[in-house]
Amino acid sequence: MNLVELEKWRYATKAMNDQKVSQENIDYILEAIQLAPTSSGIQPLEVFIIKGEELKNKIFSLSFNQTVVKDCSHLLVFTAWDNYTEARINEAFENMFEKRGARDERWDAYRQRIVDLYTNKPAEENFVHTARQAYIAFSFAIMAAAELGLDATPMEGFDSAALDELLDFKKRGLKSVTMLPIGYRAEDDWNLNMKKVRKDKEVLFTELD
Amino acid sequence: MNLVELEKWRYATKAMNDQKVSQENIDYILEAIQLAPTSSGIQPLEVFIIKGEELKNKIFSLSFNQTVVKDCSHLLVFTAWDNYTEARINEAFENMFEKRGARDERWDAYRQRIVDLYTNKPAEENFVHTARQAYIAFSFAIMAAAELGLDATPMEGFDSAALDELLDFKKRGLKSVTMLPIGYRAEDDWNLNMKKVRKDKEVLFTELD
Repeated sequence: MNLVELEKWRYATKAMNDQKVSQENIDYILEAIQLAPTSSGIQPLEVFIIKGEELKNKIFSLSFNQTVVKDCSHLLVFTAWDNYTEARINEAFENMFEKRGARDERWDAYRQRIVDLYTNKPAEENFVHTARQAYIAFSFAIMAAAELGLDATPMEGFDSAALDELLDFKKRGLKSVTMLPIGYRAEDDWNLNMKKVRKDKEVLFTELD
Repeated sequence: MNLVELEKWRYATKAMNDQKVSQENIDYILEAIQLAPTSSGIQPLEVFIIKGEELKNKIFSLSFNQTVVKDCSHLLVFTAWDNYTEARINEAFENMFEKRGARDERWDAYRQRIVDLYTNKPAEENFVHTARQAYIAFSFAIMAAAELGLDATPMEGFDSAALDELLDFKKRGLKSVTMLPIGYRAEDDWNLNMKKVRKDKEVLFTELD
């Protein structure tokens, strides 16, 4: 299936069966996340992978009782940096310099411009930006799951402050932004046979001259 | 190529040649955007397609002189609603009710909950949310382009306030969030042979028990 066909196949799965997803498949989805583009290649995000029933149950209770959090095989929690800091940006560039075996004045000047750009903005504004980068990675994960024939449920409906507390994200300088339960659809999922509806192209798209 | 291979193939193209992208290919990318998932299916975004040299040149001057804005075949500008309003949400649900040929009390109650949820939040907070939805569609467009062997440059580096002014987005209740020039890489693009660098998996991913 091509991407458009995969988009038609996938849906917001509300109930999953108890089939487990293989580690190989999870690794593929993580690789898709790892390779997703982000602004200046900084990758201001971290993803947490949760399999255990106990922790899934705790998160379920912070997720407006959406059972797919419990039913899923693996729950991915996408977090974004709560702020850009000089240390974090430098670390990202060090990784780039090292892996490219290249470090020169031009690149270092670019690194410094990025440091200056972000460290002069308030944390809230920077978090708006880091969260958007996490959404790119999140989107790639949705697609990678579909490509493998796995179901995945894009989820924003949870108490992110409570989740950050539960999983100690503040100490890591992170905030949760989305979750993605991954698994296999239950055949009796009420949402399975709902017709997929999108807005018409004329509403979404405009050519400008 | 599978998705991960496409991610390895694609890169942030900084220079494009003058080859034009076919309408068929643009339509495919738009369909990928149209089918992208968004929160509650509301699709709080609009995408503008720009081909003309004059307008591309004006946008170039608001884009920190990134020449790819001029070089590209088609420039996509992703915008998000500047706010959720009752009218906008109702319109989205009307579209759904109509296309599914179904309208009942349960769905109408859901619609009302969504209206209450968003119309009680400030515009800025709602825009944070609509912009994230636009990023999902943006991500699908990046991938769709790669699948077609087209180059695409995810771009946040432009003066969005000036662009909103130029393209009269405020009157439409929209704000620009990202751009995606689409075309074909120039063979002498300085960024073409730069090694793709990503953070190690241990940095990005953590299993929690």
